[in-house]
Amino acid sequence: MRKVYDTVIVGGGINGSSIAFQLAKRGLKAAILEQGKIAEKASGAAAGILGAQTELTEDGPLFRLACKSRSMYRSLIPELEELSQVHIGYRNKGMYKVAADKDQETELKRIIESQRKAGELAEWLSVEELTKREPAISAELLGAMYIPHDGQVQAYELSLAFAKASRALGADIYEYTNVSDFILKDGRVHGVKTSQGEFLAESVIVAAGAWSREVLEKTGLSLPLIPVKGECFSVSFEKLLVQGTIFSHGCYIVPKKSGRLVVGATVNVNSFDERVTLGGISSLMERAKNLVPDIEKAEWEGAWTGIRPQSADGKPFLGEHPLYRGLYIAAGHFRNGILLAPATGELMADIVEGRTEQSNPFGLSRLKPFIQT
Amino acid sequence: MRKVYDTVIVGGGINGSSIAFQLAKRGLKAAILEQGKIAEKASGAAAGILGAQTELTEDGPLFRLACKSRSMYRSLIPELEELSQVHIGYRNKGMYKVAADKDQETELKRIIESQRKAGELAEWLSVEELTKREPAISAELLGAMYIPHDGQVQAYELSLAFAKASRALGADIYEYTNVSDFILKDGRVHGVKTSQGEFLAESVIVAAGAWSREVLEKTGLSLPLIPVKGECFSVSFEKLLVQGTIFSHGCYIVPKKSGRLVVGATVNVNSFDERVTLGGISSLMERAKNLVPDIEKAEWEGAWTGIRPQSADGKPFLGEHPLYRGLYIAAGHFRNGILLAPATGELMADIVEGRTEQSNPFGLSRLKPFIQT
Amino acid sequence: MRKVYDTVIVGGGINGSSIAFQLAKRGLKAAILEQGKIAEKASGAAAGILGAQTELTEDGPLFRLACKSRSMYRSLIPELEELSQVHIGYRNKGMYKVAADKDQETELKRIIESQRKAGELAEWLSVEELTKREPAISAELLGAMYIPHDGQVQAYELSLAFAKASRALGADIYEYTNVSDFILKDGRVHGVKTSQGEFLAESVIVAAGAWSREVLEKTGLSLPLIPVKGECFSVSFEKLLVQGTIFSHGCYIVPKKSGRLVVGATVNVNSFDERVTLGGISSLMERAKNLVPDIEKAEWEGAWTGIRPQSADGKPFLGEHPLYRGLYIAAGHFRNGILLAPATGELMADIVEGRTEQSNPFGLSRLKPFIQT
Amino acid sequence: MRKVYDTVIVGGGINGSSIAFQLAKRGLKAAILEQGKIAEKASGAAAGILGAQTELTEDGPLFRLACKSRSMYRSLIPELEELSQVHIGYRNKGMYKVAADKDQETELKRIIESQRKAGELAEWLSVEELTKREPAISAELLGAMYIPHDGQVQAYELSLAFAKASRALGADIYEYTNVSDFILKDGRVHGVKTSQGEFLAESVIVAAGAWSREVLEKTGLSLPLIPVKGECFSVSFEKLLVQGTIFSHGCYIVPKKSGRLVVGATVNVNSFDERVTLGGISSLMERAKNLVPDIEKAEWEGAWTGIRPQSADGKPFLGEHPLYRGLYIAAGHFRNGILLAPATGELMADIVEGRTEQSNPFGLSRLKPFIQT
Repeated sequence: MRKVYDTVIVGGGINGSSIAFQLAKRGLKAAILEQGKIAEKASGAAAGILGAQTELTEDGPLFRLACKSRSMYRSLIPELEELSQVHIGYRNKGMYKVAADKDQETELKRIIESQRKAGELAEWLSVEELTKREPAISAELLGAMYIPHDGQVQAYELSLAFAKASRALGADIYEYTNVSDFILKDGRVHGVKTSQGEFLAESVIVAAGAWSREVLEKTGLSLPLIPVKGECFSVSFEKLLVQGTIFSHGCYIVPKKSGRLVVGATVNVNSFDERVTLGGISSLMERAKNLVPDIEKAEWEGAWTGIRPQSADGKPFLGEHPLYRGLYIAAGHFRNGILLAPATGELMADIVEGRTEQSNPFGLSRLKPFIQT
Repeated sequence: MRKVYDTVIVGGGINGSSIAFQLAKRGLKAAILEQGKIAEKASGAAAGILGAQTELTEDGPLFRLACKSRSMYRSLIPELEELSQVHIGYRNKGMYKVAADKDQETELKRIIESQRKAGELAEWLSVEELTKREPAISAELLGAMYIPHDGQVQAYELSLAFAKASRALGADIYEYTNVSDFILKDGRVHGVKTSQGEFLAESVIVAAGAWSREVLEKTGLSLPLIPVKGECFSVSFEKLLVQGTIFSHGCYIVPKKSGRLVVGATVNVNSFDERVTLGGISSLMERAKNLVPDIEKAEWEGAWTGIRPQSADGKPFLGEHPLYRGLYIAAGHFRNGILLAPATGELMADIVEGRTEQSNPFGLSRLKPFIQT
Repeated sequence: MRKVYDTVIVGGGINGSSIAFQLAKRGLKAAILEQGKIAEKASGAAAGILGAQTELTEDGPLFRLACKSRSMYRSLIPELEELSQVHIGYRNKGMYKVAADKDQETELKRIIESQRKAGELAEWLSVEELTKREPAISAELLGAMYIPHDGQVQAYELSLAFAKASRALGADIYEYTNVSDFILKDGRVHGVKTSQGEFLAESVIVAAGAWSREVLEKTGLSLPLIPVKGECFSVSFEKLLVQGTIFSHGCYIVPKKSGRLVVGATVNVNSFDERVTLGGISSLMERAKNLVPDIEKAEWEGAWTGIRPQSADGKPFLGEHPLYRGLYIAAGHFRNGILLAPATGELMADIVEGRTEQSNPFGLSRLKPFIQT
Repeated sequence: MRKVYDTVIVGGGINGSSIAFQLAKRGLKAAILEQGKIAEKASGAAAGILGAQTELTEDGPLFRLACKSRSMYRSLIPELEELSQVHIGYRNKGMYKVAADKDQETELKRIIESQRKAGELAEWLSVEELTKREPAISAELLGAMYIPHDGQVQAYELSLAFAKASRALGADIYEYTNVSDFILKDGRVHGVKTSQGEFLAESVIVAAGAWSREVLEKTGLSLPLIPVKGECFSVSFEKLLVQGTIFSHGCYIVPKKSGRLVVGATVNVNSFDERVTLGGISSLMERAKNLVPDIEKAEWEGAWTGIRPQSADGKPFLGEHPLYRGLYIAAGHFRNGILLAPATGELMADIVEGRTEQSNPFGLSRLKPFIQT
């Protein structure tokens, strides 16, 4: 039972689905192979921050990719909602990156200047201005960097929308399908072997998040990628406690529709362990209460984890495998997988079609030291 | 559609079911009328501590009732498990009531002496002795009162076992059956009106926990009973972190089978609100970490609430209604509903059968001031 | 602790919230008193059909109220979504009321004619036309009455939206608040007594669904209202199996966003029992497979029940209590509670403000035989 | 970070844990490496039938292994419960394998004779005798083969008990630990590579259920093992509907404690898909109603799936890898994984210690045709 596609994508998280969506728009026949269910790992666990200017601070290729990706969402959201019939819950009420002490204030003001020079909007709010806009925020803070364009989405719904929109445009999705090996010959890939039989394709893209390292070991490459566990929780409140997203060192509070608040995330390096620990959520709660004291009256909903893929040099891997032609990698987005999905989809589709690779700052020639000999 | 019973019990919590069990053993035909499902409120939410000497400190009628009730469990548990086919998870590994400061230590030592005089075992353990027995306990504590006979159960399973054992002996259980009124005539009760029709009975017992006040308002009695909300949570650990139950001011940790730990409980006076709040469980977590620091590595399971019925004078109401013959009340057990269930069942069965009422220290003549005129 | 309002509404289901919303828009200070949580009973359990022409067949006051209510949703939905920040999931893809045999076909064709005369759109589709529009529908059917304007919503979200929009306009919501009695004097209502103290108000509206009978017994009125239990379940499919809602004798299939399908509902007369039975969902499954055979490949999500209030004469009770001025009733909507909420809110607000009562076909003079003497 | 053990076991299902338990009892240092959580796949999903004479019909090595394994549980259960503090819920009330038609009756009577010759108890019950013992069983059946010694357990709890008892005896358990490769050299195994680093061991046992094939592909062996998806559900009833387990062609009903009934299982060959389908549970429900009609009044609890490993020749693979010394396989138990766990643990421990391999009828020389060259 062999199946033949133009491109096979290993991994049904948000980036795999975004790539499938772009390929399908260009008329290529793509298949997503997902070990479990679509978006059931990190993509579904994410708080959904689109923090181009919050998570990234200095100008450079990644900052520019992030800002571009963020701006792509404006037209993508209605297109995806129409095609997928999924409500994504996009909110564009800005982000407050707060300062708890003088050093943080100084640093944030420096970042504001730097980002303005790069052409992106940001401004400093004194604690008076901050609490006037967001009265629930603690008056003990010193102020905040306000970023009007950093919005947020419901990450699971968005991931699902990418997948369903891909299918609506002709892509196929195979869930509960585990890739056991690649079909490699004469220096190029010809497909993959799976628990559902062989899939033949001239191009194969590994977009398996933190599990990409394991998948790629079959090709002799030890991708320098570390799994970073993050714990989150959500609560609900009778009304929206805050309008914008509140972002601090070690904790963010993301206001969803209907008075729901998602709070994240702990950072547990080198762990695939999906258990929520008492210590993890208890420390997050303390931080959240320091940011928005009234959150202690909110109703508890639940807690969960996501395993995020951190690359050794902080940049995602987006390019062709150093050993095999036709085999591509799109992994290592760390905490910015949701934010970077649109740009990742577009860039990978360009690369598969043979455009742009030359000057790609996320290319994989930097992986040569990690090839097993 | 009239139904006729010897006794109708309003409320399917642990005390209603324990009364039904005792009545059924004596050959009386009893019916339990439960508004929702058996044990779905406070009885199912309880941590299951049998803390006769922990919760009660001074000798007196309630202390003696509690110690007697605790000792009744030894023979009751196997009987209930056999009749009901429910596994109750009784554990008899003792209780540690810890001292965090010198004042608490002095007070606990005084209580130990007082209880010994009353004939109950208890001893002081220095922090060295304590941490030798329970190495996971914080060495910052000063020591603990150790009570060998205060054990614990799985409260929901025990409540269910009482109900199912009652049914096995001939009692009937009506779930989703709401009592809208009493049938009162000539100074005595003759039954109740419900959403499932009338139930006729020569005796009616109200055992509706915190909801007893509302039920009894139909009889012109404002039972001095306050609903006290308590929040709990549970975690699991690969092995049992502690063997005995750890009890402190504001927090207890109860080790269940399979490495599960139940931690309770907040105290929120005059509230029927069943929501778990972030503030509630976050404060419990801080306390639990102070008692058993390694609990922060435990895996989060979930949180819930129970509404406990606190009587104005701290003693349960166990006796005949001051206005109507044949109408009885068994309510106001506060945090000791699980502990007191066996003795409550026996005492109420005695009262219904016309024995013992004279010298009953829990009788209802003390309710006269609360009758509406 | 007395609280004073213009109007107190007993019951936080969709109709209580819709009334609060209309009152708040007119500048009245309203409070919703809800025994548990907002929309946690029948309103949250409903499949969300807006079946003005499907559920009601003959022209008359109720038919006209239903058609009016349905048309009110068009402008209400965006207003509610904006005020509440809840996504309601309104879908307006029409309804197919199918015929499985010749008698049903004849009857449906008669209804189409009758409704056309009443000015409402409906048309007969042969099985060829039907399966061309909805290829997943069984070709064993004989055809369907197609009703373009009967749409559907997510009932829980809509109910929540009404409640949150009311709050945004100044209404207060008290959850976990049980009404134990009415304050009645000199032939009129002055407020209610609750587990949270007294609420004073010149008007009180009972909108407690199937529980309205129990609530009103305190006023000497035995509302002729029967609780009718209905079981539902939902499944998900990779894409939307059907676009419109499929309605048959004994089963309807309602396509929600993201490929979710809600299937309802069994009819169990005179039951407050909230348990889902194997027999109930198994019979629904057989019916659903007969309508849309491929539903058997759909993924199981879960099952639940709702208790719907059926009035003795099939019409809702919307008007003033026959014994007490200022006390109003809005109950008995049976399977049309979601559909009728907008019109109910408007009509009750009119009545409270002293308009329209004279010719109200849903008024309560028909309740006189049910008054207890 | 290398870890050194005597034996590493790949897979934390019931058989991996049973092997670890036997090794730990013999003083060997064992580690269980589990990709997710202990017993979260087929072992936790099983209905827990110990059907030595029900599932297997003809005398032979597998029949004898099954009968031996079943008898081992009598002493194992109390030992495991004591060591693990997990309540296993062992019930020994026999099994009824029913006949729905004359052919089935004839066949069952033949099997009874054959098993009696093999020394195992079984008897034919006419439908009168059957319904006298189990009044809830359908009187439309023709009778049943009654097997007094085929009991049942709570499969998840039993699996957990094996794991926790192993740990109590010194074994280590690593959850969320994925084996990416074997360390092979000079024709023998020296350990495994995992997401948590390398584990060195002189013996490695693959006990990964349906996932064993994928794991072993790294050794050049295509284990002839097919994943067979099975769907189950559970309901609860106020009392135990049946005492013994009811087993028929295509459906079994297993009475657990507290009135819970587990019903299984569909058979979906060659599928790793863990979704529950409407069609799957709807067909099981129809079969269950035919066996025990009153089950339709039972309360619905939920549904789930398990992926069972079926071997090509129907016998489990229990022995040394045909290519590498020190590497062992214990997989392919199909529907008898729970039943066979004790004997599997003992046999594998014997093999690892160098005993018994010669005449092992489950040995792996039969795997030679499946080695990739």
